[in-house]
Amino acid sequence: MSSFRDDGALALDWVASYLERVGELPVLSAVQPGQIRAALPEAPPDEPESFAAVLHDLDSVLLPGLTHWQSPRFFAYFATTGSEPGVLAELLIAGLNQVGILWRTSPALQELEDVTLDWLRQLVGLPEGFHGHIEDTASTGVLAALAVARMLQPERRVVVCSEHAHSVADKAARLLELELRKIPVDDEFRLRPELLELDDACAVIATIGTTGAAAVDPAPAIADACARAGVWLHVDAAYAGSAAVCPELRHHFTGWQHADSIGVNPHKWLGVPMDCSALWTRRPEDFRRAFSLVPEFLQSPDDAVSLSELSIPLGRRFRALKLWAVLRCYGRQGLQERIREHVRLAALFEEWVRAEPGWEVVAPRHFSLVCFRKEGSDEENEQLLERVNASGEVFLSHARLGDRYSLRLAVGNFRTTEDDVRLAWDVLRREADALYG
Amino acid sequence: MSSFRDDGALALDWVASYLERVGELPVLSAVQPGQIRAALPEAPPDEPESFAAVLHDLDSVLLPGLTHWQSPRFFAYFATTGSEPGVLAELLIAGLNQVGILWRTSPALQELEDVTLDWLRQLVGLPEGFHGHIEDTASTGVLAALAVARMLQPERRVVVCSEHAHSVADKAARLLELELRKIPVDDEFRLRPELLELDDACAVIATIGTTGAAAVDPAPAIADACARAGVWLHVDAAYAGSAAVCPELRHHFTGWQHADSIGVNPHKWLGVPMDCSALWTRRPEDFRRAFSLVPEFLQSPDDAVSLSELSIPLGRRFRALKLWAVLRCYGRQGLQERIREHVRLAALFEEWVRAEPGWEVVAPRHFSLVCFRKEGSDEENEQLLERVNASGEVFLSHARLGDRYSLRLAVGNFRTTEDDVRLAWDVLRREADALYG
Repeated sequence: MSSFRDDGALALDWVASYLERVGELPVLSAVQPGQIRAALPEAPPDEPESFAAVLHDLDSVLLPGLTHWQSPRFFAYFATTGSEPGVLAELLIAGLNQVGILWRTSPALQELEDVTLDWLRQLVGLPEGFHGHIEDTASTGVLAALAVARMLQPERRVVVCSEHAHSVADKAARLLELELRKIPVDDEFRLRPELLELDDACAVIATIGTTGAAAVDPAPAIADACARAGVWLHVDAAYAGSAAVCPELRHHFTGWQHADSIGVNPHKWLGVPMDCSALWTRRPEDFRRAFSLVPEFLQSPDDAVSLSELSIPLGRRFRALKLWAVLRCYGRQGLQERIREHVRLAALFEEWVRAEPGWEVVAPRHFSLVCFRKEGSDEENEQLLERVNASGEVFLSHARLGDRYSLRLAVGNFRTTEDDVRLAWDVLRREADALYG
Repeated sequence: MSSFRDDGALALDWVASYLERVGELPVLSAVQPGQIRAALPEAPPDEPESFAAVLHDLDSVLLPGLTHWQSPRFFAYFATTGSEPGVLAELLIAGLNQVGILWRTSPALQELEDVTLDWLRQLVGLPEGFHGHIEDTASTGVLAALAVARMLQPERRVVVCSEHAHSVADKAARLLELELRKIPVDDEFRLRPELLELDDACAVIATIGTTGAAAVDPAPAIADACARAGVWLHVDAAYAGSAAVCPELRHHFTGWQHADSIGVNPHKWLGVPMDCSALWTRRPEDFRRAFSLVPEFLQSPDDAVSLSELSIPLGRRFRALKLWAVLRCYGRQGLQERIREHVRLAALFEEWVRAEPGWEVVAPRHFSLVCFRKEGSDEENEQLLERVNASGEVFLSHARLGDRYSLRLAVGNFRTTEDDVRLAWDVLRREADALYG
């Protein structure tokens, strides 16, 4: 095997070149299902191959099968960024290969996770008293929070959220054998707190920045209702939570400090590569009661609490290192600048849509997501989206809002410029003209 | 911010130097709880810092708080390796920042995961008909498998395993509100199949390579009992499964092909950095029924099945890329060589212990784990282990076997040589002499 330094130089150059040219690649992969599989050998090699051969096939075989999340013209779902410091931190993480199964197996992992989650708590303006740890995704974070809520009130088997809450709530409820009760939203796609009936509920999920429309559930009224009923409140701010680093956007988060647990994904809008989902709770002791399980083989002379006592997986990666690298290399100001620019670009796009006859904005814009549609049927809008995405120039996604098929443009990649957003608008109008004649 | 190429060269050099010197660092961190935390700023920086500053603090602040899993003299728990191709693949994974929430968001991720898991299936000698996907850890894999079993027989709320099954079974059962029934083991720490009572059970966990003693539960008899009772069988081979790449070790795995699901962790003994846990099942459609949940916003024109429909988290990293890099850069032969060498070293260590008066081997050795103890009380053995680990020269762990405190030496790092194992034996005898006088 050739040397780590030589292979590393190749890998680094590959990534650097990729990031330089990603803006020129078709955003959405155009391969057919099965096409990549068919291009790969059916059996593993017997003899060692070079790392250079792996890189070669990454280009020639896999590249056409990539949808480029790093592209500045990725506007689908919630756009993300694997920022440069975050990417390089993953190299460090893998090189160190720490396995945080208990404190002594990596004191630095455990304590840096404590510290960086507290830094992030300060950045998003949450008060002291919240303890944070990192989950892989919000799926796991919501599952963990609901498991704690169920433990506290085992007879109350209902979780309440709005019909716009993320499907991770459905999955978690299914796994925990809880009933998920979805209540209707108002005309701005917000949970209607007057409809909350919590007698049989163990938890409520309020969303700040829903997946469909980035709607903001009224956290103060929901928190009041939860407090009165003695019900766990989880605030899902997976996407929008990062926006709370900007004081001028913090009014959307009023009331979230009353939650029992809060999820924010730095891998969504804060430049940290997949995966890094922050979960804070004011009740870490309840998490520990729910998840702590220290078998004989993990007993150790120190009595430090391990983060694995607060979550489902026993093993944890050194993800705190990439969060640390990103928070330091951008600083509060750098992160604020990027969030503000994304919000500015979304506001600009929103203006263009509003000013254009035959197009409409279909949901209030609070952050960097614009929901809109072209006059016409759902099928026509769906067809429009497919044409736009098939062009490879930009990639957008959709949501059903008020029972209408709507298009979504989410700004969230650190490399996105005004030109990229303008291109999206040009492509949308061009394809609409072609489609509607 | 300085350039990605410049910062990348610094990061790469840091990792290369680390891997060159890791053998000289104290294996077990000697810091006190809270010491790393106290050395870090209480608040995040306002202004951007350089990546070089992050690397500087990695050395000066965090390094003393690392327990060196990459050290050739790490013999605790199950020793692991973040191999060079695996480490560099993590750089690629982060650079690409793929998010596999559904097929079209990364066809290459989805299909390479299918292909590499099938390669690995072939390498460990499992028959066709098993479909594989990657979980973060065995904790999540066991949880998923038991959730499927519970779905199939919702009235049967018992999971059966031996008293030596891993604590992830306890955690999963707790989360799923199942009763975990642990049955006694024989004098080789194997589940006693004649004690299986499965009338009220939905699942059995058989372990090939238990955490304590790497014992091998009798899979054929257990599989027969499960088939008769119509009960899901999960085989946990998280550690030992990698050994099945060697035909001469495959007899330990007789019968595992009758399991409904099987877990093997390439991040344990196959050179893949944390995290990469393989989960195969003969019943992928049941997994899909349990976990599939495709909300409106994830509907897409293709009808390809997404791997997120088979597991708990919605978002998945491009972990298949590191498994692919490792399988190719070592090849079947390279992996076999390393497993064989580890087994040889463990057998050698076992011989030394057997030949030394006052020491005994306390469990049969099947793979690369030796369980042993010095004559004397549990407290004395515990004290011995603490002295050995405090030396920083090697790091071992313990298990309670047959109600006796026993020491464990697990060979599993690709950098470990015979000299390292000999050093462990020297340190053990030296500290025993010092302790026992």
